[in-house]
Amino acid sequence: MRAIVLDEAGMLSLCERAKPAAGDECLIRVGAAGICGTDLELLRGYAGFTGVPGHEFVGIVAGEAGPEWTGRRVAGEITVGCGTCAGCRAAGRGHCDVRTVLGIRGRDGAFAEYLSLPASNLHVVPPSLDDVTAVFIEPAAAACRVVEQLTVEPGMRSAVVGAGRLGLLVAQVLRTHGAQVTVIVRSDASRAIAEALGFETSGVESARGSLARRFDVAVDATGNPDGFATAAAIVRPRGTIVLKSTTHGETPVAFSPLVVDEITVIGSRCGPFDRAIDLLARGAIDVKPLVAGVYPLERFADAFDCARRGLKAIFTP
Amino acid sequence: MRAIVLDEAGMLSLCERAKPAAGDECLIRVGAAGICGTDLELLRGYAGFTGVPGHEFVGIVAGEAGPEWTGRRVAGEITVGCGTCAGCRAAGRGHCDVRTVLGIRGRDGAFAEYLSLPASNLHVVPPSLDDVTAVFIEPAAAACRVVEQLTVEPGMRSAVVGAGRLGLLVAQVLRTHGAQVTVIVRSDASRAIAEALGFETSGVESARGSLARRFDVAVDATGNPDGFATAAAIVRPRGTIVLKSTTHGETPVAFSPLVVDEITVIGSRCGPFDRAIDLLARGAIDVKPLVAGVYPLERFADAFDCARRGLKAIFTP
Repeated sequence: MRAIVLDEAGMLSLCERAKPAAGDECLIRVGAAGICGTDLELLRGYAGFTGVPGHEFVGIVAGEAGPEWTGRRVAGEITVGCGTCAGCRAAGRGHCDVRTVLGIRGRDGAFAEYLSLPASNLHVVPPSLDDVTAVFIEPAAAACRVVEQLTVEPGMRSAVVGAGRLGLLVAQVLRTHGAQVTVIVRSDASRAIAEALGFETSGVESARGSLARRFDVAVDATGNPDGFATAAAIVRPRGTIVLKSTTHGETPVAFSPLVVDEITVIGSRCGPFDRAIDLLARGAIDVKPLVAGVYPLERFADAFDCARRGLKAIFTP
Repeated sequence: MRAIVLDEAGMLSLCERAKPAAGDECLIRVGAAGICGTDLELLRGYAGFTGVPGHEFVGIVAGEAGPEWTGRRVAGEITVGCGTCAGCRAAGRGHCDVRTVLGIRGRDGAFAEYLSLPASNLHVVPPSLDDVTAVFIEPAAAACRVVEQLTVEPGMRSAVVGAGRLGLLVAQVLRTHGAQVTVIVRSDASRAIAEALGFETSGVESARGSLARRFDVAVDATGNPDGFATAAAIVRPRGTIVLKSTTHGETPVAFSPLVVDEITVIGSRCGPFDRAIDLLARGAIDVKPLVAGVYPLERFADAFDCARRGLKAIFTP
């Protein structure tokens, strides 16, 4: 099969590669796969991953140990855990000490014609969601994780720092759960998209001035190390910062303001697929403005360049 | 009156200074006052404070607008807020935007013969607590703040990083609320004190190895920037790190592990005096092993040197 492969030097290439040996997992023919901020970080060395990246996908089950799933159109949870280790017992299979993660850790991903995952990771995609929309199930689930971790009071003043593909999903999820949402933007282009989706917006510098200490919750979805400082500047005393970005490397942080202002910082990763599918199917999340381009695998360089501009680039392998 | 004064160069000196003009506050004759890690940070530039430091005290009310408090032996909450600003409305007077804080921000403190505080900040100290013990009411209250912010399940596996004056208060508060507590120590001396108080102990290096990802909760009470990395190493996935130290400057932090492991980080500051007084009066917190020396004001240099070794140095002005 054809696959995009990331090597140890952080370079991508289009390769001929053997199909995954699915074993007792399901072999899935990838229909569409999205490039995420984490994929861009992988190229910079995050997680030390080599192999086929990609973890946001929709596809058709092409083969499996049993017949139940074959032919179904599915999205898939990306983490495969053992179920018995200390991490699994403490925090569930998503936090398995020896886990593999699709396209991120020890398991080839979705930027290829085929991938494999256990049947227990799969969710059937309703026909009303086209492939491009269905690619957003995984990141929309990650966005939904925020409202599992927070109690969203009606009218809660929330800010989403970063108007990229993930930030605008988080903003929509917060809004549909009753929060007031302001999106903190870096560029006129992202401001336009956020406002087209109906959000109040503010530039980073003006937010750190006029909106300082204003928000009950600030979500950092920037995918860059500056995002935390912005979130810390605009959250109120005893407020909450949610970290949605995985970035490579270390960031200097002043801890004393977090102590003095009694800020809570919550790391937030993968979330509930059922809720994401429901929100997408109901139209409560609009993903169309977030799609910047659709590419065949051989145009991987253009696709990654497109993704670096902040919105969603999608492969149709 | 005599007072220890911190100048802009970070130098301390013993000065003759006017008594505080109490106005509608209570004038308090200081009986004893303790040196806290925050005081050591003030000397390094933390909070930009100049004036009389000191915020842990017990004393006798020497005068006031009305007669109700005069002659009473009191400890005092350290923050004075306006009650009307955005910070007060969002998070209570402790988080007032224009607050003063005894010996830390805009208000002379307790390393002097007299201080002043509003009557509403004062708590009567029961006669069963001697002055040296009563000095621990304020830091014990700060330790109690941790169990207001966490739900302590019976048998919860907790670690306190740092066996100094604050760490060993937090450890005792957690134990009395039903948690299992391991104290992470740096030296044989602090190990001996922690073990004399009945705690399991581990050195920092061995904890980061054999106890990695083990604890439901890790409290950083080290007062130094390395403490966070140790806490992050030993907390389990989906566990909680509590920040109890205010340190000057910035610390490099790798955010991705906090996101991937979905760690919650909670800044924790001042706490409930009533609960602290109750725990001290019941003997649930033993402070005697934490006292390293008692000094008159003129021996301030010796007292601060003593405090730098990690336990409590106390002035009797």
